[in-house]
Amino acid sequence: MPQITAQTSGVFAIAPTPFLPDGRLDLASLDRLVDFYEDVQVDGLTLLGQLGEAPKLTHQESVEVVAAVLRRTSLPVVVGVSAPGFGTMQVLTDEVMALGAAGVMVAPPTSLRTDDQIVGYYTTVGTRLGADVPIVVQDYPLTFSVVMTPGVIGRIATEVPSVVMLKHEDWPGLEKISALRASEAAGTTRRLSVLCGNGGTFLDFEMSRGADGAMTGYCFPELLVDVVRLSAAGATDQAHDLFDAHLPLIRYEQQPGTGLAVRKHVLTRRGLLAHDTQRAPGRSLTAREVTEVDYLLARLARRDPRAKVD
Amino acid sequence: MPQITAQTSGVFAIAPTPFLPDGRLDLASLDRLVDFYEDVQVDGLTLLGQLGEAPKLTHQESVEVVAAVLRRTSLPVVVGVSAPGFGTMQVLTDEVMALGAAGVMVAPPTSLRTDDQIVGYYTTVGTRLGADVPIVVQDYPLTFSVVMTPGVIGRIATEVPSVVMLKHEDWPGLEKISALRASEAAGTTRRLSVLCGNGGTFLDFEMSRGADGAMTGYCFPELLVDVVRLSAAGATDQAHDLFDAHLPLIRYEQQPGTGLAVRKHVLTRRGLLAHDTQRAPGRSLTAREVTEVDYLLARLARRDPRAKVD
Amino acid sequence: MPQITAQTSGVFAIAPTPFLPDGRLDLASLDRLVDFYEDVQVDGLTLLGQLGEAPKLTHQESVEVVAAVLRRTSLPVVVGVSAPGFGTMQVLTDEVMALGAAGVMVAPPTSLRTDDQIVGYYTTVGTRLGADVPIVVQDYPLTFSVVMTPGVIGRIATEVPSVVMLKHEDWPGLEKISALRASEAAGTTRRLSVLCGNGGTFLDFEMSRGADGAMTGYCFPELLVDVVRLSAAGATDQAHDLFDAHLPLIRYEQQPGTGLAVRKHVLTRRGLLAHDTQRAPGRSLTAREVTEVDYLLARLARRDPRAKVD
Amino acid sequence: MPQITAQTSGVFAIAPTPFLPDGRLDLASLDRLVDFYEDVQVDGLTLLGQLGEAPKLTHQESVEVVAAVLRRTSLPVVVGVSAPGFGTMQVLTDEVMALGAAGVMVAPPTSLRTDDQIVGYYTTVGTRLGADVPIVVQDYPLTFSVVMTPGVIGRIATEVPSVVMLKHEDWPGLEKISALRASEAAGTTRRLSVLCGNGGTFLDFEMSRGADGAMTGYCFPELLVDVVRLSAAGATDQAHDLFDAHLPLIRYEQQPGTGLAVRKHVLTRRGLLAHDTQRAPGRSLTAREVTEVDYLLARLARRDPRAKVD
Repeated sequence: MPQITAQTSGVFAIAPTPFLPDGRLDLASLDRLVDFYEDVQVDGLTLLGQLGEAPKLTHQESVEVVAAVLRRTSLPVVVGVSAPGFGTMQVLTDEVMALGAAGVMVAPPTSLRTDDQIVGYYTTVGTRLGADVPIVVQDYPLTFSVVMTPGVIGRIATEVPSVVMLKHEDWPGLEKISALRASEAAGTTRRLSVLCGNGGTFLDFEMSRGADGAMTGYCFPELLVDVVRLSAAGATDQAHDLFDAHLPLIRYEQQPGTGLAVRKHVLTRRGLLAHDTQRAPGRSLTAREVTEVDYLLARLARRDPRAKVD
Repeated sequence: MPQITAQTSGVFAIAPTPFLPDGRLDLASLDRLVDFYEDVQVDGLTLLGQLGEAPKLTHQESVEVVAAVLRRTSLPVVVGVSAPGFGTMQVLTDEVMALGAAGVMVAPPTSLRTDDQIVGYYTTVGTRLGADVPIVVQDYPLTFSVVMTPGVIGRIATEVPSVVMLKHEDWPGLEKISALRASEAAGTTRRLSVLCGNGGTFLDFEMSRGADGAMTGYCFPELLVDVVRLSAAGATDQAHDLFDAHLPLIRYEQQPGTGLAVRKHVLTRRGLLAHDTQRAPGRSLTAREVTEVDYLLARLARRDPRAKVD
Repeated sequence: MPQITAQTSGVFAIAPTPFLPDGRLDLASLDRLVDFYEDVQVDGLTLLGQLGEAPKLTHQESVEVVAAVLRRTSLPVVVGVSAPGFGTMQVLTDEVMALGAAGVMVAPPTSLRTDDQIVGYYTTVGTRLGADVPIVVQDYPLTFSVVMTPGVIGRIATEVPSVVMLKHEDWPGLEKISALRASEAAGTTRRLSVLCGNGGTFLDFEMSRGADGAMTGYCFPELLVDVVRLSAAGATDQAHDLFDAHLPLIRYEQQPGTGLAVRKHVLTRRGLLAHDTQRAPGRSLTAREVTEVDYLLARLARRDPRAKVD
Repeated sequence: MPQITAQTSGVFAIAPTPFLPDGRLDLASLDRLVDFYEDVQVDGLTLLGQLGEAPKLTHQESVEVVAAVLRRTSLPVVVGVSAPGFGTMQVLTDEVMALGAAGVMVAPPTSLRTDDQIVGYYTTVGTRLGADVPIVVQDYPLTFSVVMTPGVIGRIATEVPSVVMLKHEDWPGLEKISALRASEAAGTTRRLSVLCGNGGTFLDFEMSRGADGAMTGYCFPELLVDVVRLSAAGATDQAHDLFDAHLPLIRYEQQPGTGLAVRKHVLTRRGLLAHDTQRAPGRSLTAREVTEVDYLLARLARRDPRAKVD
């Protein structure tokens, strides 16, 4: 099976976990989602991230989701394995790697503060998971309250050879990408693949700063694919035009705590999810929010006709 | 002098504090800014907020800035008086109210956690500042880590009669506006003026949710004025069209820690500030950021010709 | 099997989880510990708390520890089931209750801020775990950053009938116990059993404030048992004399992050644990710390001869 | 006037700020306190710390307190000058240094996270205050949420020559003192004076770890003086005996938020303060707390007859 490396690029779509109205896993919708992601030509998938409602699944369900996706696709699949302890992390990692995952993603515990604590944490992760498991470091201070400087990321790259990718979602983050790439160019830091999150909110400029692509779950992954390819091809204005058409919705989807409801609503409207159900403590959109999202969708369809939702 | 009330509406522009390259106050630029705000027909000004670099001024400088603005304009002026202790807050409040300020804005200390602590804090503020000083409560959890539910805001409104306005910048915040307005309609909560911040990022929908306007410092206050007036006039599509044209720049300006540099850069490009200087620990834009902002300005000018910057 | 109720009182010893030097569970030491706790006449046990290194165990190991203890003793056993999601919490709860646990303990997620969020969380916990599972609310702001007022605890008691006990370890916490008991006396709040943690640091006064006992893991549980019984019997001076003799060690053991190493060291010195091993990221005492603890043990033995360690 | 240096040792008593019942400064009590501190032979004083209620004073009052103390004593006096901005910090520093202060103490803003941010902050402080103002770095993570590793403290020592002292109150902190001293011995870190805070809770062992003394406000500074001198003289057992007698009260006084009320109560009982008044949001002890403190005082007087309070 393909594994992620420090050269991986493109779009890794973060898949939401579909549920039936009674809260059980909806594997039929998951199959449909996977087929859709293949159709729109993403380069990989990410399962069980924060917006995949990972903490709400039991261990058995987590494995079930990963197994279902890996049966359906040959795309590389990154799996979120963050856990309060190394034991649980290791058990899940071993199972999903055995199933054929392309790597695992690990978020830092919110208690980490100092540079040494952060580097130490990922060093232990690397040792525990084993040298042959490619690791994605998730750098998301807004959610995890852990701030990693470019220097710290460089130290992790040096001390943990199995770390191959940074899921970049610091905010602001543009200068950080430039600093990392400059440090790599200077030979100070080993190269990492940098895929950007934050719902895509800065993807237009992240690409020109040196990012390798996106890893996020915006409800129109086609847009992510297009922006990444147009940017890579040097068609900057075109990339921005397309991006700007989507930005009102991207911005609306990027509301903490509400964003996943928006995402599931749109994916349901698009016929990919059968239901927009979240497990507790998630909630569906209010009637007012539905009106607003539908208004944004109608406006979007006028600017990007391919984004028409029936 | 005019004071703010629970019926105040429109746009209160948050003015940055202009500095000379050596860090001294630049009162000439401040005069120019004030004239500009009058020209674009904002409804009021806010001084010494977070993005007015208030904590970087000495007490004497703070008073000097307020006095200079109040000499120049008859617009209502709200002054940020947040301080680690009530003594300092009271001294500054007394001075600026004597100079003719329209009210004061108070942010919650980051140590507050429980509902009772928050209500208790504003109760003490109200008592200390006196019944005749109109107070704006700043609700900005992203920066202050203090989360106020609609119920807590309602309790503050009940227990502190001098609180007349909410500077709303929770994120997400749309449902909160609806909840507050519903509670007012039900007679549970006393009406407060609700002016929205967050750099204007959600102003398009905040107006239809029931906000009375905006209090923020986006570098094109004309846009805020237009969106508020178009929304109030029911010209929703037009308001969104204009808003969407500005959103790529609004989004770029709303980066924590970087946003003020963007704002000062654009205001300098617009000939309003003589310099984009910030006091430490602020910084100017990097060359790369300047390129990006200028690119956004050029794109903006094509969609909103009035936003052309020479 | 006995279950905890709102009338439960006495000492629930928090058992550390014993490991072999290679990190595997040491069930022989666990048996020895359980026998020891019975010998010193504690009233119950608590497993898989923070200081039981719960997050470091896999699900299977967690169940194994609980099963081993329940095979060995007929004391009531409370099990920590805190988890990032309700699914995992429910699976563990169902298993340990089926094995005969007396109740479960749930800590609040560190993301909770407002009163409503806290009450809402425990309401969901109560609904998910089912009406017949007695719940202990863990009130430990120093570790979890969640502050519960007496009013919030009262609301939880009202809205979640299966909550029967408060593990009280707010700091400071004496006035909180008084406030809770006063609220119960006034009929405002349903009675909860209040067992105190914090390593016992304030147990001398907590008892006279109205606590029902202790739930903590101090390395001399005999002291906890004595202080609780002497206090209950009105022998206040005697309780304080004994407590004061232990306070230098209690204080030393109550150092965040270091305390468990002290505790495991002393329990090893006492012949109860075969090893003082912690799983990563825990550590053993440094040589210097060993010297200090041994010095404290020697001094303690002179003041409380029963606390002599060979 | 004497200034603090990297060789300063002994006890710097943190003086509370005395208030009259109506909240005005009580300078008569302040004089009495200063005389008392001289009588018990402390080596210096610290004014306007957290427990000096510094944030509750206006600038003018702050200067008034410092001036009054410096008129009364020739002891070296450290002044807390922490402020949200450098402007205010600098104005206060200039004034108190001109009055004859021995140095200033600066706490880190709670927003600092990374190693570089912390070092950068103190570098700016050093530059702004000027090379001739001796600086004390306050390392108090429990209150400020800023975690400084020994390495970071070493970097500050290297990059900011005017930093001469560490107010050490990390918790746990014993290993940190050893690490700092080892780093100094190895020539990696420039020597700093290390005076310990935390109300004295670990002073017994801090001295043998290499601390130079204490900087804290325990209500019996005589005890701090004795423990420091006995420890320095190698009379370890005697130091511990005395310390242990006070520990029940030290522990009670070290309750966050409540501790200052205890301290002011005891200093009032001792005839040094005329009133135990705190400014809002402080509070006096409840009747129940008074009973508990008086009980502890009575017990203490039996173990340390010099600590008798009439």
